[in-house]
Amino acid sequence: MSNEYESMWKGLGLNLASHDALLEVLGKGYTDIYLAQKDRPEGMGYFDFVMSEVHGLRIKELVDEKEQGRKIIGSYCVFVPEEIALAANATLVGLCSGADFALEEVERYLPRNTCALIKSAFGFKLGQVCPYLEAADMVVGENTCDGKKKAYESLGTLMDNLYVMDLPQMKSDLGRDLLRSEYDRFKTAVEELTGVVITHESLTQAIKIVNAKRSALHRLAKLRSADPIVISGLDGLLANQVSFYDNPKRFTESVHKMCDELEKRIQANQGIFPVKTPRILISGCPMAVPNWKLPWIIETSGAVIVGEESCVGERGARNLTQDTGTTIDELMDAITDRYFDVDCAIFTPNQERLDHIQEMVKAYKADGVIHYGLQFCQPYTMEAIPVENALEKKDIPCLRIETDYGMEDVGQLKTRIEAFVEQLK
Amino acid sequence: MSNEYESMWKGLGLNLASHDALLEVLGKGYTDIYLAQKDRPEGMGYFDFVMSEVHGLRIKELVDEKEQGRKIIGSYCVFVPEEIALAANATLVGLCSGADFALEEVERYLPRNTCALIKSAFGFKLGQVCPYLEAADMVVGENTCDGKKKAYESLGTLMDNLYVMDLPQMKSDLGRDLLRSEYDRFKTAVEELTGVVITHESLTQAIKIVNAKRSALHRLAKLRSADPIVISGLDGLLANQVSFYDNPKRFTESVHKMCDELEKRIQANQGIFPVKTPRILISGCPMAVPNWKLPWIIETSGAVIVGEESCVGERGARNLTQDTGTTIDELMDAITDRYFDVDCAIFTPNQERLDHIQEMVKAYKADGVIHYGLQFCQPYTMEAIPVENALEKKDIPCLRIETDYGMEDVGQLKTRIEAFVEQLK
Repeated sequence: MSNEYESMWKGLGLNLASHDALLEVLGKGYTDIYLAQKDRPEGMGYFDFVMSEVHGLRIKELVDEKEQGRKIIGSYCVFVPEEIALAANATLVGLCSGADFALEEVERYLPRNTCALIKSAFGFKLGQVCPYLEAADMVVGENTCDGKKKAYESLGTLMDNLYVMDLPQMKSDLGRDLLRSEYDRFKTAVEELTGVVITHESLTQAIKIVNAKRSALHRLAKLRSADPIVISGLDGLLANQVSFYDNPKRFTESVHKMCDELEKRIQANQGIFPVKTPRILISGCPMAVPNWKLPWIIETSGAVIVGEESCVGERGARNLTQDTGTTIDELMDAITDRYFDVDCAIFTPNQERLDHIQEMVKAYKADGVIHYGLQFCQPYTMEAIPVENALEKKDIPCLRIETDYGMEDVGQLKTRIEAFVEQLK
Repeated sequence: MSNEYESMWKGLGLNLASHDALLEVLGKGYTDIYLAQKDRPEGMGYFDFVMSEVHGLRIKELVDEKEQGRKIIGSYCVFVPEEIALAANATLVGLCSGADFALEEVERYLPRNTCALIKSAFGFKLGQVCPYLEAADMVVGENTCDGKKKAYESLGTLMDNLYVMDLPQMKSDLGRDLLRSEYDRFKTAVEELTGVVITHESLTQAIKIVNAKRSALHRLAKLRSADPIVISGLDGLLANQVSFYDNPKRFTESVHKMCDELEKRIQANQGIFPVKTPRILISGCPMAVPNWKLPWIIETSGAVIVGEESCVGERGARNLTQDTGTTIDELMDAITDRYFDVDCAIFTPNQERLDHIQEMVKAYKADGVIHYGLQFCQPYTMEAIPVENALEKKDIPCLRIETDYGMEDVGQLKTRIEAFVEQLK
């Protein structure tokens, strides 16, 4: 797609040579990992198309929106409410952070012992290869973990449109007050950016759109609990990943269309994995495109992934926002309540997450849990130990993995995962 | 001192064999590092004595206080206000976290990639070798960094008296509200623990005691700015370290007594390092007893340390608390204001720290800065890069060190530090 979009990418300030190299790797990875799968639902064709055009057609849509005066807001975290962006007639997109890029340059800004996701965000900026980032009128950082919190100080020196959102560390009354106050501040900032005043009607409408998107993801998640298994974990993950990039209404329709197909498969007992394939729940750090390393290893090691306890997965999509508030204030409260329930490991204590993992194991009939920690992600690698202890108490097998975006440890991981899967049979 | 205190240690629940081994290492380290220094001020005799009795006489004092009904509160951080403890007739002590202990057992609770200070706190608990911790009626954890925040969740399973204090991440109005609210909650908890209601008088008095201690440390710090150099950096650090353990009034007197002596040395031009010895400012992570590794390497590499931009140093002791409030509320506000100014790297943004480092370089006539980051301490290792950039802009040489409590890298560090010192000559 290079030729067709070259002038657009140039206009966004991308480094074309680096970007071409990135697209080539991305395309090859997608072919090897995704297109190599068998018996995929036809509905995945839509997501294949989206991915093939993830730096092309989708960016063109955003550029077209910009030309019509619509603003683009980029985000690195599920704590940034899409409802508020949509209500002010802006588009919220997730920003690239799923692959290593320009590592040497990155380490001039960040210590080597920084998690791959944060390094990736810097790499995409420094390498000028993320069209979402370059198209964004506002980039939202958030004080989740220490790594991101401190990294945004440096990222702010590389761009003039970084907006930092503070977040609480405890689910106390004051913690909730802080979140509400920060969402109010964000609402004002978005209104200033767009010149659009959010109304009760526009906010209600935005909540409905985002709820519909999340409901579609809930439906998909539930279908993955079925036995026979009718969709791979890789494909399930992809739908969740695409939810951060795509137009929300079109995305919702596409997910439902695929769900109709999956329901038929279930009724026809059309499983795509051998009977009694061990079912794995993944729990831990988010997996942004094109971070498919661990699911790919798992699903080529004789197991299938039936759910993701992850921000790119159920933790990010769980719970709808109540849309019945009769004032903007009530709706903002409802938004705050919904996001305050997200059980990210940045919170202390975070017992809810341990409970949710066990509920998901049950709901998705998982035989075991693989906890995915990005190396140097302190909140998740630290919480992994209590997670494992809690699961062991319930006799649920758990394997703790710590890795990054590099490919050096694939062989070693495969050996460990095959042994784990064997034990689940 | 083993025999004399054995029954006391046993009574506290220490593991005597492990504790003996620890004391032996500590004693040897102190002899090799501290007592090997030349021309030390006579006033350091007091601190030598304190250190020789740090698990003996000082613990006996605490045990005696407990027998008289006084409560002991242990803390891991300078954000826990000693003023509030003292005002309720309690004693605040810093808890052991400066040496590796029981590492294998620790890694059942914490990932290997956790900073040495946090691992140390667990090691002292799991190994049952910290008499301060075992004597404490209340142990205060605080949500500073992700590492500590998540570690306290596990530490809480090892003790029944852990109290967790929340902290803000930004110096916003809501951040200050949170700190004030948490100090109010702490005050109530301390009053409940001690059965003593804090009064305007007792709080004023406590503020004065802590201010006096900090003023003594300020006086000592200022004398280290002199040329000739009349006290080593190791000895200066020790005074700061002892301030966390000692009776505050006795400590204050002892520091002033030594300062009188240092002033005489300055007047008599009695330097204890060769003229033109390169002067180093250390900046970064706190150094708890017996973490003397880096200062020891620096001061045996031809340089002298003239100040510590550290929680165990100027960052922790900077600023007095206004004691003129006419109500408890005003005094609590003053305490909040004082601690809210601490420029720990957990805050974002944290420009004040960059400014303070440069002010300290000037005030102490430092020729260069060595930034000390504990490996895996994200806030400080990440902030080290902007610190270095800011210093380079002002042509102040800076060396970034990342290390832990192990001795494996001493040779390598010495080579790097000698080269850095050479460049300052």
